[in-house]
Amino acid sequence: MLKEAIYHRPKNNFAYAYDKETVHIRIRTKKDDLTHVRLQHGDPYYWTEDGWQYQLDDMEKSGSDSLFDYWFIAIKPPHRRLRYGFELTDETETVYFTEKGYFEEPPGETNDHFSFPFLNPIDVFDAPDWVRDTVWYQIFPERFANGDPSINPEGVVPWASTEPEPDNFFGGDFEGVIQNLDYLVDLGVNGIYFTPIFKARSNHKYDTIDYMEIDPQFGDKETFRRLVKECHNRGIRVMLDAVFNHSGYYFEPFQDLLKHGEQSKYKDWFHVREFPIQEEPIPSYDTFAYVPSMPKLNTEHPEVRKYLLDVGRYWIEEFDIDGWRLDVANEVDHAFWREFRKVVKDAKEDTYILGEIWHDSMPWLQGDQFDAVMNYPFTSGVLQFFAEQNISATDFSNKITNVLQLYPENVNEVSFNLLDSHDTSRILSIANENKDVVKLIYLFQLSFIGTPCIYYGDEVGMTGLGDPGCRKCMVWDKEEQDLDLFSHVQKLLTLRKEIPAFSNDGAFRFIKTDDATNSIMYEKANDRQKLLFVINNSEHHVTQGLPYAETYQAKELLTEEIVELNPNENIKLNPYEAKVYYIQ
Amino acid sequence: MLKEAIYHRPKNNFAYAYDKETVHIRIRTKKDDLTHVRLQHGDPYYWTEDGWQYQLDDMEKSGSDSLFDYWFIAIKPPHRRLRYGFELTDETETVYFTEKGYFEEPPGETNDHFSFPFLNPIDVFDAPDWVRDTVWYQIFPERFANGDPSINPEGVVPWASTEPEPDNFFGGDFEGVIQNLDYLVDLGVNGIYFTPIFKARSNHKYDTIDYMEIDPQFGDKETFRRLVKECHNRGIRVMLDAVFNHSGYYFEPFQDLLKHGEQSKYKDWFHVREFPIQEEPIPSYDTFAYVPSMPKLNTEHPEVRKYLLDVGRYWIEEFDIDGWRLDVANEVDHAFWREFRKVVKDAKEDTYILGEIWHDSMPWLQGDQFDAVMNYPFTSGVLQFFAEQNISATDFSNKITNVLQLYPENVNEVSFNLLDSHDTSRILSIANENKDVVKLIYLFQLSFIGTPCIYYGDEVGMTGLGDPGCRKCMVWDKEEQDLDLFSHVQKLLTLRKEIPAFSNDGAFRFIKTDDATNSIMYEKANDRQKLLFVINNSEHHVTQGLPYAETYQAKELLTEEIVELNPNENIKLNPYEAKVYYIQ
Repeated sequence: MLKEAIYHRPKNNFAYAYDKETVHIRIRTKKDDLTHVRLQHGDPYYWTEDGWQYQLDDMEKSGSDSLFDYWFIAIKPPHRRLRYGFELTDETETVYFTEKGYFEEPPGETNDHFSFPFLNPIDVFDAPDWVRDTVWYQIFPERFANGDPSINPEGVVPWASTEPEPDNFFGGDFEGVIQNLDYLVDLGVNGIYFTPIFKARSNHKYDTIDYMEIDPQFGDKETFRRLVKECHNRGIRVMLDAVFNHSGYYFEPFQDLLKHGEQSKYKDWFHVREFPIQEEPIPSYDTFAYVPSMPKLNTEHPEVRKYLLDVGRYWIEEFDIDGWRLDVANEVDHAFWREFRKVVKDAKEDTYILGEIWHDSMPWLQGDQFDAVMNYPFTSGVLQFFAEQNISATDFSNKITNVLQLYPENVNEVSFNLLDSHDTSRILSIANENKDVVKLIYLFQLSFIGTPCIYYGDEVGMTGLGDPGCRKCMVWDKEEQDLDLFSHVQKLLTLRKEIPAFSNDGAFRFIKTDDATNSIMYEKANDRQKLLFVINNSEHHVTQGLPYAETYQAKELLTEEIVELNPNENIKLNPYEAKVYYIQ
Repeated sequence: MLKEAIYHRPKNNFAYAYDKETVHIRIRTKKDDLTHVRLQHGDPYYWTEDGWQYQLDDMEKSGSDSLFDYWFIAIKPPHRRLRYGFELTDETETVYFTEKGYFEEPPGETNDHFSFPFLNPIDVFDAPDWVRDTVWYQIFPERFANGDPSINPEGVVPWASTEPEPDNFFGGDFEGVIQNLDYLVDLGVNGIYFTPIFKARSNHKYDTIDYMEIDPQFGDKETFRRLVKECHNRGIRVMLDAVFNHSGYYFEPFQDLLKHGEQSKYKDWFHVREFPIQEEPIPSYDTFAYVPSMPKLNTEHPEVRKYLLDVGRYWIEEFDIDGWRLDVANEVDHAFWREFRKVVKDAKEDTYILGEIWHDSMPWLQGDQFDAVMNYPFTSGVLQFFAEQNISATDFSNKITNVLQLYPENVNEVSFNLLDSHDTSRILSIANENKDVVKLIYLFQLSFIGTPCIYYGDEVGMTGLGDPGCRKCMVWDKEEQDLDLFSHVQKLLTLRKEIPAFSNDGAFRFIKTDDATNSIMYEKANDRQKLLFVINNSEHHVTQGLPYAETYQAKELLTEEIVELNPNENIKLNPYEAKVYYIQ
C-alpha cells in the first residue's frame, strides 16, 4: 500500500456538510492500489461497556485520475457529530488510517480519529436552490440588440455594418434585450448574465465611472426596472457584473486623487504606494495588472466598503436583481466578501454570488463568501479535448475528474460552466468552425454537473476570435442564423429540464475513455434513471462495446428511437456522432 | 520521483501570508526522495518581450517525518501578487509542478501556475503581538488560594485538609489570587488563564448559571476589577474561560424551558429535537456529549447570539480582560465565532482568542476566527516520549514535526502548549514522579515554538491523577514545595525572556534523534543566535557527537559554564541530563 499517496484532511472537499443532515467524506489513494475502503464512524460520545460504538461502511470509488483514486461516502450522523477513520485494504493487508496516523487495528479511542465536530446548519454551504436548475445566457449589452435608437451613443454605426473594434459602438441597449426575451425563452435559458451596465466610457463598461448609475446608452433606471420585471415574468433571473477590485479612470474619487494628490479626501480609497501620483514606469498606486487606468480600490477602507456594500444592496433592493458576478474576485480581501455576502443575502435571501477566479477557489467556497466560481478548469478541459483536439480522451477524463474532486458536490452543482466569453474566442472559432464538434461540446456541457452558460449568439453559429472579434453584433436575421445548431441547443435544454438525471440530479461518472478512437462514455444516474452518453470525438467511424452485462430497453434521446442495448452488440457511431441512451 | 507523495494546495499551511509583506510557501514530498526544490515565482502581470519574468529560488527542507519531507521558502512579492510553481529534482530528473500538473519545462503561461492572488493586510492571520511573548499560568480558582474566608461557600473545608472530591469546596477566591500575584511574578509567568469564574453551582463552574455574574464564592465584580488591575500592574494578562457551547442546568432560560416546555419563550435557545423535554434514554435536546445537565445552546438563534456576544464584550469593556478561552469551541458554528471575533476585537483590538479544539484546527485558524488553539498534539507527543516513555525519539520527532507542518508559522508562534490541566493527571504523576524527566519536559516546553502554559502548582512538584486528583489545593508551605523544581522553571523562564532564540524568535529544527540512547538534539536559531539543545531522556549515561564541523565557543546555559564545542569530542550526558549550548 502506498501510504505516501493517501490524503485526507477533515474539511473542504474531503469532509463537508452536503446539507443539514448529510456529511460527505472522501479520501484519495494511489490509483489502482486499494481494493476496498470502509469508513469507521460513529458519535464520539456513544459508548457502552463494550467501548466506543461505531459502524464500518463501504466507501465507493467515485473517480480516478492519472495518479489517484477517490473514494466517497455520504453519512447522516443521527446526533450531528461524527468521529471517523478509514479502513484501507489492498491485495496484502488491511490498515486503519486516522488523524493520528496508521494502525493495525481500528482504534477504539475516539480522540485518535478525524473529527467532524458538529453539523451546524448555518455553516452549510448553501447556494440558492434555483441556481442548480438555471442555464445562463451571457449578454454583452452593447452588442445584443439596439431597441431604442433615440439613446444611441455618439458616433454609433449601423448594426453589424462593420467589424467590432476596441472603441466602436453599435448601440445595443436594454430595450433591445426586452424585445428579444421571448427568443431566450424559446431557446430555453432561464438566467441572463449581463457584463457591466453601469456608467462608463468604453463599449465594454468595465471602466466604471459611477456604480449607482445605468450607462445612458443602455437606457435609464426605469427601463432597467422594466427589463428585470419582464425577465422575471418569463422565469428568467438577472445577474449583474460587479467590478469592485478596481474602478475606472473617470471614477470621481480617482479623478479627485489625480487632481489633489496627497490632499485628496479620497487618498485612502486607493492603494497609493507613493506621492506624487505617477503612471510610469509602473503606476505609483496599485492597479489591475499594471494598467494605470484601472486603479485598485482599497476595500479595507471603511468608506470604500460602505460605498461598495451600498452598491451591492441597492441594485437588489431597488431593481430586484438575482445575482452578482464579481470581477477579479480573488484580489479583493476575504473580509470584504464575507460582509458582502451578509449584505446581499440580507437584502434578498436567494441572491446568487459568483466569483471570477481562474485558480483553485476552495478558500472562497466554504459557505461564508461565494456561491460559485466561474469554472475555468472545466472550460479548458472541454476546449482542449473537443475544440482543440490536443489532449487524449484519458487526459480529458483526468482533468474533468480533477475538477469534480477539487470541490464539494454541492459546490459543483452550482459551478458556472462556461465555454467562452467576451474575453475569449467564440467556441465555433476555437473548434476550427467544425459545427459537429460544437454540437458534442454542447452535449457535454449541458449534461454536466453545474450551471452552464451560453455566450450570446454562439447558439446560432456566430464566430469570432478573441476581443474584439468575439464581440460582434448579435445576428438576428434568420437567414444568417444557424437554425440547426439552435435546435440542437434547444433540444438539449429541453432534455436537461425534463429528465432529472440529465441535469444536477444525476451523478456523473466516466465509464470508458478510448484514446485509440478518441471517444468517451459516461453515465448520469440517480436512483430512478440512468443515462448512458457515448461520444465519438473523431473524424472516423467508431464502434464501442456496451458496459453492461444485461440487455436493456432504451430510448436514444437525440433521435428518439427506441433501441435494445444488447451487450453482445456494439454501438456504431459516425464521425463526431453522439448517442444518449435513456435506460428504463 | 514519487509524484503521488507530492502535495501542495495554495492556502492554509501550504501558502499563507506570514505578515503584511511576506508569503510563506511549503510543499510536501516523499521522504528522502528529492535532492533539490526551487520555487519558480513572479508577479503574474510582469511580462516583457521575453515572456513572463520569474525567479527561481531554493527552498529549504524544514522538516521530515516518517513518510515525508517538507520544503519551505519565504517570499516578499513586491506588488503583493504571486504566481508560482515548483522545480523538483531527484537523482535522475527535474520536473515542474503547478496547479495544472507536471511539466518537463517551467511553464511560461502564468495561468498554469498556483496563485496567491493578492496579499490583503486585513486577511493576514494576526494574533496580538503580546501573545508570542507570554507564558501562561492556569488557575483553577477554587483551589489556588483562599484569601477571604468571609465569602467561603457553604460547607467549605479547611485548605488542603482533605483530598479533592467532585463536590467539595476549599474556598479559593480572587483575594487569594491577588495576595499571591508576586509569587507568579517571581516565577516569571506573565499571563493567567482562569477556568470559569461565572455564577455556577459546582466547584469547577463549568455549569454556568449566569454569564454576567461573578460566582459569589470568588468575590464580587469590584474584587475582580481589582484583580485584573493588579495583574496589569505586574505585566500579567488575564484570560477567562467562555463556556458558550452549552449552558449549565440552572441557567435561567433552560430552567424556563424545563418548566414551560414548548410554550417557553426560550424554546429556540436550545436544540430541542422533540417535546416534551426528556432526559432518558438520551436527552430529547442536544447536549454536550449526552449529559442532560449540559444543554447545547443554539448559537444560530439571534437572541442567543446577542446574549453571548454581549458577554464577550462586557468582560472586556468593563473589566479589561485580555483574552477568552473558548470551551468545546469546535461544536459551535463558524458564523458565530466570526461575529465573536469582530465584537471582542472591536472592544479591545489585542484581545486573544483561544479555542479548545483537540483535532485538526486549520478551519478556525485562517484569520477570521481564533488566534490559537490548545495544542493537544504537542501535549500528547511530549507526554508519550518523556513522561510515558512509550514512543521512540524518532516517533517523537515525527509527531512534533507534524504539529509544526500542520499550521502556518504565525499560528504556531501563538499556539497554547500545555502539559496538563484540570482535566488530566498532573505532569509529575504522568511521569511516574520522576522529577528529572519533568525537568526535561519543562526544558522542551519552554524552549519550543508557541506560548507555554503551566498548570498551577506543577512548578512546586504537586502531584495528582485525573479529575478530581489534579485539583488539589495549591501548596503554599515552602517546606512542602519542591523549590529545586521551582528554580528550574524560573531559570528557564528567564532564559526564554532574555535570549530571543530561546523563544519564538528562534526557528526550531531537530538535528538528531537517537532511538538507541533515547536522546534528541535540536537547534533554535535566528540570524544572530544559535542554541543547541541535547537531551538524554534515558536512565543511562549517553555520549553524543556534535553536529558541527568547526569548533565553537559556547556557554552551557543550565550550568553557565563556558565550554569549547570541538567536533572531535563527544558530549557526555548523565541519566536524564540536558545541555543547552548558546553558541556565540
